[in-house]
Amino acid sequence: MNIVASSKESNYTFIPKDYNIPADSKYFHCTSNNTIYGTQLKSFPRTTVPMVCDMSSDIMSREVNVADFDLIYAGAQKNIGPAGSTVVIINEEILGKVDRKITAMLDYKIHIEGESMYNTPPVFAIYVAMLNLRWLKKQGGVKEMERRNNAKAELLYSEIDRNSLFKGTCAVEDRSHMNICFVMNDSSLEKEFLKAAESAGCVGLKGHRSVGGFRASMYNALPIESVQVLVDVMKEFEKNNQ
Amino acid sequence: MNIVASSKESNYTFIPKDYNIPADSKYFHCTSNNTIYGTQLKSFPRTTVPMVCDMSSDIMSREVNVADFDLIYAGAQKNIGPAGSTVVIINEEILGKVDRKITAMLDYKIHIEGESMYNTPPVFAIYVAMLNLRWLKKQGGVKEMERRNNAKAELLYSEIDRNSLFKGTCAVEDRSHMNICFVMNDSSLEKEFLKAAESAGCVGLKGHRSVGGFRASMYNALPIESVQVLVDVMKEFEKNNQ
Repeated sequence: MNIVASSKESNYTFIPKDYNIPADSKYFHCTSNNTIYGTQLKSFPRTTVPMVCDMSSDIMSREVNVADFDLIYAGAQKNIGPAGSTVVIINEEILGKVDRKITAMLDYKIHIEGESMYNTPPVFAIYVAMLNLRWLKKQGGVKEMERRNNAKAELLYSEIDRNSLFKGTCAVEDRSHMNICFVMNDSSLEKEFLKAAESAGCVGLKGHRSVGGFRASMYNALPIESVQVLVDVMKEFEKNNQ
Repeated sequence: MNIVASSKESNYTFIPKDYNIPADSKYFHCTSNNTIYGTQLKSFPRTTVPMVCDMSSDIMSREVNVADFDLIYAGAQKNIGPAGSTVVIINEEILGKVDRKITAMLDYKIHIEGESMYNTPPVFAIYVAMLNLRWLKKQGGVKEMERRNNAKAELLYSEIDRNSLFKGTCAVEDRSHMNICFVMNDSSLEKEFLKAAESAGCVGLKGHRSVGGFRASMYNALPIESVQVLVDVMKEFEKNNQ
């Protein structure tokens, strides 16, 4: 494995833009959205090698040109349906190039031949995914999800930037629209803020232990009204802590 | 792979009893119940090599001495819960003996270390399995399930043996209590019987294409009252086709 780009040195707070993908690589792998650190690839590199992307945490949240990728995979449990199934979109031309023996369950060729029913499928997870995708289509599709997610992100990031008590943890241009990470300038207030947010019904806001602070996850299922509640709590908290 | 016993020659209608498991085998594998052909292991061989058993289609349907096995695995979708999870019971002593590289997802050691949460678990499937297992416990546990399954099997096999129009396809001593396979002496009547059964609400009775005839699957979830309905249809059908 050859890591072509990383912002590990600065705790993954930005996405490097200036890197080369060796032309003799077997493939290039990226993850479109980082759920822990709150960064998101706003555009994807152009490369001549097959491009593989883990879109688990932002698939269906914004339009992407699927044809640019040779393999997209995504655990369904964020924007598609219940945990227990994974979506794979594959360019069949890249298959069959591995020499080593692949276990049947992990061989995409076998799943394609079996029309995605090689094994007993997790029927409930797939059924609910169908219902959710029908709902999504009715709302206006991925285009409309993107519009809503942009509005939600704009609402919360604006407040983070405006509010004197808070600051975002990531480079502005790489900010995720799915997982918004932020901290307080005075970290001693964080416990109290978390309590205030919870009283208002905002739960699961505690940031990952490697980042600290807060993380607001705003997948497709979260309405903008819920984001507004959090913004209101932040405004109120600022007033009470002048 | 070394097949120590098979009844392939007679279309898998019985389970061979007289076979040897070479003492230098890495393990012995068996499947406790054959869903397609309707046979079931009534007892398990004694062997000094690790014993691995696929109990997908009869786990929780009868008491087994778990300690006799080194690895029991079972897709949960028959007697435990919805499709999408698999139960594994393992003797930890047999782990770590494989030299070749095992993919993380298929390495039981990794799942044990991750307390069965190495990956995002299929929460719905697991939750419903919990509800079902609680129900099962309340009914009297596996012991009571076995009593009910015996009664259901006795009811249907008795009718198959009594009714002049039908016959079972498997050796009597190997008959499955989960999947009961039978045919008609006059196969030209089978379509009509299937229709009669369907009218009475018995669906999914058509046998696997490799056996023909009928297959009544009677997992834990099926009450004896449903078996009685099928038996009544058989009796009625006999009367009308004397």
